[in-house]
Amino acid sequence: MTTLSITDGQVLRPDGTVTRADVLVDQHDGEILEIGTDLAGDETLDASNALVTPGFVNGHSHASMTLLRGYADDKRLESWLSEDIWPAESELTGEDIRIGAELGVLEMIKSGTTAFSDMYFEVHEIADVVEQAGLRALLGFTAITVGKDDDGARADMVESLEVARDLDGAADGRINTTFQPHSLTTVSEAYLDEFVPKARELGVPFHFHVNETTNEVDPIVDEHGVRPLEYAVEKGLLEPEDFVAHGVHVDEREIELLAETGASVIHCPASNMKLASGMAPVQKLLDAGVTVGLGTDGAASNNDLSMLDEARDAAMIGKLAADDATAVSAETVVRMMTQGSADALGLDAGRLEEGAPADLAVIDLEAPHLTPRHDLVSHLVYAAAASDVRHTVCDGQVLMRDREVLTLDESAVLERAQAAAAALVDRIDG
Amino acid sequence: MTTLSITDGQVLRPDGTVTRADVLVDQHDGEILEIGTDLAGDETLDASNALVTPGFVNGHSHASMTLLRGYADDKRLESWLSEDIWPAESELTGEDIRIGAELGVLEMIKSGTTAFSDMYFEVHEIADVVEQAGLRALLGFTAITVGKDDDGARADMVESLEVARDLDGAADGRINTTFQPHSLTTVSEAYLDEFVPKARELGVPFHFHVNETTNEVDPIVDEHGVRPLEYAVEKGLLEPEDFVAHGVHVDEREIELLAETGASVIHCPASNMKLASGMAPVQKLLDAGVTVGLGTDGAASNNDLSMLDEARDAAMIGKLAADDATAVSAETVVRMMTQGSADALGLDAGRLEEGAPADLAVIDLEAPHLTPRHDLVSHLVYAAAASDVRHTVCDGQVLMRDREVLTLDESAVLERAQAAAAALVDRIDG
Repeated sequence: MTTLSITDGQVLRPDGTVTRADVLVDQHDGEILEIGTDLAGDETLDASNALVTPGFVNGHSHASMTLLRGYADDKRLESWLSEDIWPAESELTGEDIRIGAELGVLEMIKSGTTAFSDMYFEVHEIADVVEQAGLRALLGFTAITVGKDDDGARADMVESLEVARDLDGAADGRINTTFQPHSLTTVSEAYLDEFVPKARELGVPFHFHVNETTNEVDPIVDEHGVRPLEYAVEKGLLEPEDFVAHGVHVDEREIELLAETGASVIHCPASNMKLASGMAPVQKLLDAGVTVGLGTDGAASNNDLSMLDEARDAAMIGKLAADDATAVSAETVVRMMTQGSADALGLDAGRLEEGAPADLAVIDLEAPHLTPRHDLVSHLVYAAAASDVRHTVCDGQVLMRDREVLTLDESAVLERAQAAAAALVDRIDG
Repeated sequence: MTTLSITDGQVLRPDGTVTRADVLVDQHDGEILEIGTDLAGDETLDASNALVTPGFVNGHSHASMTLLRGYADDKRLESWLSEDIWPAESELTGEDIRIGAELGVLEMIKSGTTAFSDMYFEVHEIADVVEQAGLRALLGFTAITVGKDDDGARADMVESLEVARDLDGAADGRINTTFQPHSLTTVSEAYLDEFVPKARELGVPFHFHVNETTNEVDPIVDEHGVRPLEYAVEKGLLEPEDFVAHGVHVDEREIELLAETGASVIHCPASNMKLASGMAPVQKLLDAGVTVGLGTDGAASNNDLSMLDEARDAAMIGKLAADDATAVSAETVVRMMTQGSADALGLDAGRLEEGAPADLAVIDLEAPHLTPRHDLVSHLVYAAAASDVRHTVCDGQVLMRDREVLTLDESAVLERAQAAAAALVDRIDG
């Protein structure tokens, strides 16, 4: 057994308290052995003047979209997608998607994220990057059937099934999968009826977009006579292991349905603000007993993948949505970005305790914007930034030490990404 | 003449375009001599792989409140002020205020801010810190009369006058002043009637809070039968040089009044979100021709003083307030945090051009979250963070070089602030 000791830190415990302790990790099993005092390991990570938190769990992302960061901003969702994003995505090669995933995963590791749930295509490329980079991921192929002929639609649904089956358990179990009908308005009813039962046989969670804008609500109501989440239940899409992204425009009945079914919501505040989609009723969801996690969405609508930015956004917009400054408190947000997302994704992570996976981030507190230190939970949500993350550990392995990522060659990734993005723009313009 | 050349950067020009250039600075006069190619100086700052922007202008702050960062969060404005902030502030010594100002100014320099407008007390302490730290400031003493006897009320108004008179032009002209009635509900009408004419004789701008919450609107309407900004005009408080903080709850008539009078608004999005005060109609203000700047407010309601965080918040909440993703674009926000704030404060700053003050920040672009580089203006607003600021220059002097602040001893400031905050809590609790 090789051990790693994260020493002298302030350790954030599952109940929200912070205690001065060392964290001893079994690197072979990737588990936390003990949290206590004077715990020596074969290897040491210094956490003095630092907060040791569970690694952040990014519940909804499109990692490869980093290549489109800043490519088109300040546009309405529909025109942004149809005029900018979809045309650009249609030019993406498998190699582009690999490079974008490298960039996305690099940014995640540098901002303390140790697990993410991703929706995209060319998923084997993304899986290769995750395997190399060392974090955890729930991956899947996103199926769209509208606007396609039956062969095209069927191919999408089949690929979503096949990816979910083939990649589950990859990278020594660090990769799991989800079945991904893109949304209730972009996958036709007949395909849901045919493929949902097959997907259930795989035993993987479903991950899809719901109620991001009212344009995802009104057509469902018009066509099916029920709200989207009622329709989702009818179609067998809301089981306890399933999780939906956004959930901005959910009414009281839909909030109840989420609570009753046990399905989870991944809140994406930055994307919802930047696209003017609206404000999800996060405090109401939590009060109803719904599991709420936090996600960055893609870098094209955010424009970064830092869960610390997302945390601040969640607290801020959560209060506005509730018209109440006491809503979506710092403590609530910290739970959302760790336990909440992990529970939504079905990961046994998000908590620093004995026997839990050794997925953690060490946040440097020695900075003007984190001084003085009245309340470290407040600092984590309202003041800490990606650059404050000193070390990142996943599955007991050190992915970043003193800001140096050990599993990816940072400068090579940046160079490849810049070149791939420039070539992409040339192809689009040319 | 000693010259400084900022070399090889991407320079953000006043029209929003970005061009590759050197910036040559006359350090004696503190002005930009030339923006062009191959400009050698006596001293050099490397801006390769970096964006050179005007130094950010923080239009509304309470710098010393850094000592209360994270002291009380997730509370309603009124209870937060009466139960936490005011009792804590009543325990602050002049030395605390100096230490808090050091911490605030340190954080500002490290996040590219070169000028700020501050509202507080013990203002001579803050002025000393500004003089040493090397940035620009508009300072003032904030007068409150309600809840005080006539002697106390009068003393406040007189001190606001005296500070405005005595400190104007201090620190070789880097310090100017404002007259500061705290707000329309916290300074009684009789004192406005008596002191506003005296303050006008000083020729300094007025800086005060308006319409942050509906609790600052309703009492004015009840007592005076007009909206707060109509009342402000009646009382002689809205001249072209004046600027108001917040302006969240302004109606169409008040927006017109701001446009007609030429008074400016400092938008404080983070504080407005965190205290659930509401969403200022920023795009409407801009469309009406009102000058809008950007401010962080104090660190207790933000909780950081980075104008880059504030920029992202302004774009995000601006779109939600307008229910339109095209509102408050990245380009708009960049103008707000530079030209907008500078114009509001009456500073000849916020623009990189020949003859302008040499107040600038150099933002490192070599980072995953700033890769690829489709659009640097987008990156500045949506993705850049305080830690990306490589150098800060004000009045031709280098305040920070390669993240090292040259005018303040960073570790000593952090140590003093931590100790002062701990002692403060002991006094409050004890």
